[in-house]
Amino acid sequence: MRYDFASDNTAAMAPEALDALVAANSGFARSYGADEVSARCADLIRQRFDADAEVRFVFSGTAANSIALAMLARPFEAVLAHQAAHVCTDETGAPGFFGQGVGLIGLPGFSGKIDEKALKAQLEEPEVGHRQPAAALSLTQATEYGAVYDVDELRRLIEPCKAKGLGVHLDGARLANAAAGGFDLPEVPRLGVDVCVLGAAKAGAHGVEALVLFDRSLARRLDNRLKQAGQTASKGRFLAAPLLGLLESGAWEGHAAHANLMAQRLAEGIAAGTPFALAHPVDANIVFVRMPVKAYRRVNEAGWACYQFDDGSVRFVCSWQTTEEAVGELLETLRSVA
Amino acid sequence: MRYDFASDNTAAMAPEALDALVAANSGFARSYGADEVSARCADLIRQRFDADAEVRFVFSGTAANSIALAMLARPFEAVLAHQAAHVCTDETGAPGFFGQGVGLIGLPGFSGKIDEKALKAQLEEPEVGHRQPAAALSLTQATEYGAVYDVDELRRLIEPCKAKGLGVHLDGARLANAAAGGFDLPEVPRLGVDVCVLGAAKAGAHGVEALVLFDRSLARRLDNRLKQAGQTASKGRFLAAPLLGLLESGAWEGHAAHANLMAQRLAEGIAAGTPFALAHPVDANIVFVRMPVKAYRRVNEAGWACYQFDDGSVRFVCSWQTTEEAVGELLETLRSVA
Amino acid sequence: MRYDFASDNTAAMAPEALDALVAANSGFARSYGADEVSARCADLIRQRFDADAEVRFVFSGTAANSIALAMLARPFEAVLAHQAAHVCTDETGAPGFFGQGVGLIGLPGFSGKIDEKALKAQLEEPEVGHRQPAAALSLTQATEYGAVYDVDELRRLIEPCKAKGLGVHLDGARLANAAAGGFDLPEVPRLGVDVCVLGAAKAGAHGVEALVLFDRSLARRLDNRLKQAGQTASKGRFLAAPLLGLLESGAWEGHAAHANLMAQRLAEGIAAGTPFALAHPVDANIVFVRMPVKAYRRVNEAGWACYQFDDGSVRFVCSWQTTEEAVGELLETLRSVA
Amino acid sequence: MRYDFASDNTAAMAPEALDALVAANSGFARSYGADEVSARCADLIRQRFDADAEVRFVFSGTAANSIALAMLARPFEAVLAHQAAHVCTDETGAPGFFGQGVGLIGLPGFSGKIDEKALKAQLEEPEVGHRQPAAALSLTQATEYGAVYDVDELRRLIEPCKAKGLGVHLDGARLANAAAGGFDLPEVPRLGVDVCVLGAAKAGAHGVEALVLFDRSLARRLDNRLKQAGQTASKGRFLAAPLLGLLESGAWEGHAAHANLMAQRLAEGIAAGTPFALAHPVDANIVFVRMPVKAYRRVNEAGWACYQFDDGSVRFVCSWQTTEEAVGELLETLRSVA
Repeated sequence: MRYDFASDNTAAMAPEALDALVAANSGFARSYGADEVSARCADLIRQRFDADAEVRFVFSGTAANSIALAMLARPFEAVLAHQAAHVCTDETGAPGFFGQGVGLIGLPGFSGKIDEKALKAQLEEPEVGHRQPAAALSLTQATEYGAVYDVDELRRLIEPCKAKGLGVHLDGARLANAAAGGFDLPEVPRLGVDVCVLGAAKAGAHGVEALVLFDRSLARRLDNRLKQAGQTASKGRFLAAPLLGLLESGAWEGHAAHANLMAQRLAEGIAAGTPFALAHPVDANIVFVRMPVKAYRRVNEAGWACYQFDDGSVRFVCSWQTTEEAVGELLETLRSVA
Repeated sequence: MRYDFASDNTAAMAPEALDALVAANSGFARSYGADEVSARCADLIRQRFDADAEVRFVFSGTAANSIALAMLARPFEAVLAHQAAHVCTDETGAPGFFGQGVGLIGLPGFSGKIDEKALKAQLEEPEVGHRQPAAALSLTQATEYGAVYDVDELRRLIEPCKAKGLGVHLDGARLANAAAGGFDLPEVPRLGVDVCVLGAAKAGAHGVEALVLFDRSLARRLDNRLKQAGQTASKGRFLAAPLLGLLESGAWEGHAAHANLMAQRLAEGIAAGTPFALAHPVDANIVFVRMPVKAYRRVNEAGWACYQFDDGSVRFVCSWQTTEEAVGELLETLRSVA
Repeated sequence: MRYDFASDNTAAMAPEALDALVAANSGFARSYGADEVSARCADLIRQRFDADAEVRFVFSGTAANSIALAMLARPFEAVLAHQAAHVCTDETGAPGFFGQGVGLIGLPGFSGKIDEKALKAQLEEPEVGHRQPAAALSLTQATEYGAVYDVDELRRLIEPCKAKGLGVHLDGARLANAAAGGFDLPEVPRLGVDVCVLGAAKAGAHGVEALVLFDRSLARRLDNRLKQAGQTASKGRFLAAPLLGLLESGAWEGHAAHANLMAQRLAEGIAAGTPFALAHPVDANIVFVRMPVKAYRRVNEAGWACYQFDDGSVRFVCSWQTTEEAVGELLETLRSVA
Repeated sequence: MRYDFASDNTAAMAPEALDALVAANSGFARSYGADEVSARCADLIRQRFDADAEVRFVFSGTAANSIALAMLARPFEAVLAHQAAHVCTDETGAPGFFGQGVGLIGLPGFSGKIDEKALKAQLEEPEVGHRQPAAALSLTQATEYGAVYDVDELRRLIEPCKAKGLGVHLDGARLANAAAGGFDLPEVPRLGVDVCVLGAAKAGAHGVEALVLFDRSLARRLDNRLKQAGQTASKGRFLAAPLLGLLESGAWEGHAAHANLMAQRLAEGIAAGTPFALAHPVDANIVFVRMPVKAYRRVNEAGWACYQFDDGSVRFVCSWQTTEEAVGELLETLRSVA
């Protein structure tokens, strides 16, 4: 079985990430995040966003998102998110676990982007004691379906939420792909996002995501919170190191640009050479293809691991490690099963 | 400041751990733990214990212990542990967070070993509705104070608990040091331990501990449990790799034996060359020294990071990276502040 | 404003419930449920179901349902329920709070009855680590929309769940109305329900619902569980007394029969004398009416408290206290706003 | 067995409480707390404290205390309380359940009063990431051992906590007894208490305690919080009614004064007529007696339900229902077993 296009997570660590980990491995260092590697990595993140922020590193995106949401919404409140968002569909209810039952209200919208009117309708619902009122908005950039919001789209979602006092979370598991696709990172704090999860694993690291708190008041006793949640690395330098390697070298964006390009090639090849339709815009590193179940099975039988999504389309993911050859080979298979 | 003796966690990754991580870094692999690295590491762990077991890898000891306890005790039940155990004192209440309020009942005993009589007295307490009855026993091997239980001591603690239907958890953050000190690993399942946390970070890895379930019935839907708790690595091979490197090479025990030896040297030097008393037996890699506050401060001022513990003694920790030279230098300081 | 039809909960306590409370009020009694009133009430409940069961009394239906679900599904598992079920829509996320993030999977179906095919499709979904697999089925009898399942309908829902190892919960907030409508209570244990909440407040009591565990193994340390959840009455006899009064006198069914009859009268009057359609079958004590928003507002302006539901229809609820006169007056208003 | 002195909770409802409940039982009323009985009762409570406050009614003291603490301390923080406080010893870990693992730090002190020096020492502990720092102080008035703090004692505990930013909770399960003993209720808000639980069950009601929030900012979405926690009465008027009856008639204090007097008589009789020592001051309605186990057993065998406490003394509780005759009979038994 070939896992080239199965997920961003079937790729290895990027050389820059691994090299930085190896480089961090000398002598003794203070533990639990009070080391220089962590400090430098946090600085680079603040630079990327051109903003002040409290930065911490955690092991997984599931934890990062859930902890962020638990900061913004209490157990008897809810979070508004796209109904196909990772927090809603792919984290085994982690927001409810970390948030002691915090609610998730799924909103519709094309290609993983929250529909503006659906959001506004939700915001206008009268508050009643027997339901969980919305206390936060959760956005995903790039979306689960590989689309990238532009700044105006985000503003039109964030502004009415801010006006109602909601906090804003941005799940940036694929933020590098959005950035490589032209999305300007300093817009994140400018638009009023309170907590952003800056993704590292899908960008070429392993075992680290960054929790970026633009609203520093949320950071009170954050180290206690992370320790209690099992998200503190005793040898903290190794947690931050792979992400430091990616950011310091520019590979965080560079590899994402490569992954996006490979996705473009794949999409173009599908459009040009197969009868299959693309299900979503290809703004980032993912390609969703509408194909008959029979064709999907034959792609699998041909040795390509890939998955059918909730919308019925089949997903192919590119990464820093995707080669043009592999794209060519996959296209060949797709043509042959058509 | 020198961090040589501040903690097991100030040390770097051992070469065997890092090499295995680098070796894992080629090509694509299945994500979320369905990879060969994870499978081989689990096999080696079962071999070490000479027993069948369900094995999973998580990021931190705090998470590993808390999840283990949540398997054994429900929110309205309690766990019996030594009052100085890591789960009681150093995990920011993580067992209560993961266990939805599960109780911890701290028991006394010398050098971190639970006192047999205190345990029995606790087990004889009548159950009442307004208290959390004990549902599990949590042991630590080696203990927080660097002592190693012998098999008979463990049996005398475990048997009365098993007779009452309690589950048994073993926190093995320093199990390598206990093993290197002569403790026979297959005794763990033989004695009736249900869930063991096999420590890796303190043994030379980073960002990984193994959760070993000898009672396989506890493993039902364990992958869902770990995912929800933010303890699933998307690139699973890199989670297991450092521990695989340590186990495959024998460095897991070898490095621990070195750390233990360095602790012995340090202890002997203190006994022979200073007026300070050792506070606890030195069975593993930690040395606790009774010294006046003034002397403790002077050790700090001389540049050695070290900590005073709840029992008032000062802790020095050796690791795979501790050198004889460093031991010599620390002893010199200790003699000079006496 | 008139609250006659606003909710089952706007009614007062039925005389039989209050009288039993007054009767319980003499001398001293053992506290925390170890009293005779509680014991007799539990016996009557076992008689009603013609089955052995562990019985406890709690203060609210929200707590009763949530605790029941927490017994049947763990945090990383989910409960299947009708998407309009009270546990899904009207309990402020209580199942997630009591169940530490336990998931709820809402299923469609007419009039609050779970659609058999939708349930089967859900049961056939493959289990994956990143979603919460179903561990329990939650049924509501009578449903939120006032329909009553017949035994065959229930069997066709319960059997495939039992075959897959799921537990079964029955929310019986309006079980008295179902019973009065011909549903045979001993079918509840016979069909394989594990935990039933026998409703008392809507039936004429206050501050008490019964938790009935046909699967006694679920009751281990139940008193600790309830105490921890704030659901233990110190003066336990007064908790059970109102329900004892209803059961001992037969008023539990008798009043429900009256409420059902009033609902029938109301429904017949609407069908015969207004242009409005009934939205759901009137099997119990609730009448849902499809009417233009304008008409709904005029009903409100005429002084009748009533609510528009998620399906757009307007709800009118009858209770033990509903009079024929009130039904007549409401019908007059409905005719006048048509 | 006679339960006259076993607990405050073995007594029946006081006539004033029951009469108010009966009086509330006419016609229809708005549900979920939006009724006039609840409004009037809240007003009377604000009058008693001579302060503005948000007031809600919940079913049990366990829930009231736990919800209050969850407002003041987050899961990774802790609450300081006397080690014998009800929240520490008698609520099955409810604060951890409602507070998602919130910590409890038990402090010593005579007769249930927190020792001022121990509190200050705790406040001076440096904050570290791996422990739960204190975020709130929990006081009990009267204490579990029947002592009543004077205003200066309370001030000396509250002031240093407030200076450090901690919130303050007062468990007033026996606040009526403290008030009857001369403690001035308006001191509660004046001293800076943020949330007070005004006890009703021990004062002669059933199934109701009042949650009094002097810091109104804590009340945001309180109705959602209570609903989610299973602490909302559908027929809200009946929840508040018994307490309204006690407060409106003055019986809340009057019955407490009687209970205190009976405790005095009992204490005097023990001091004068038996060789047994009183273990604690008798400021409220409870008498703790040091007696040999043999004597304790004989009291039990003579038919008097009573309990040995954690400090080894035997507790006798008086209530509104305690008669002089019963005090005389108990004294006779105590003399006979001496």
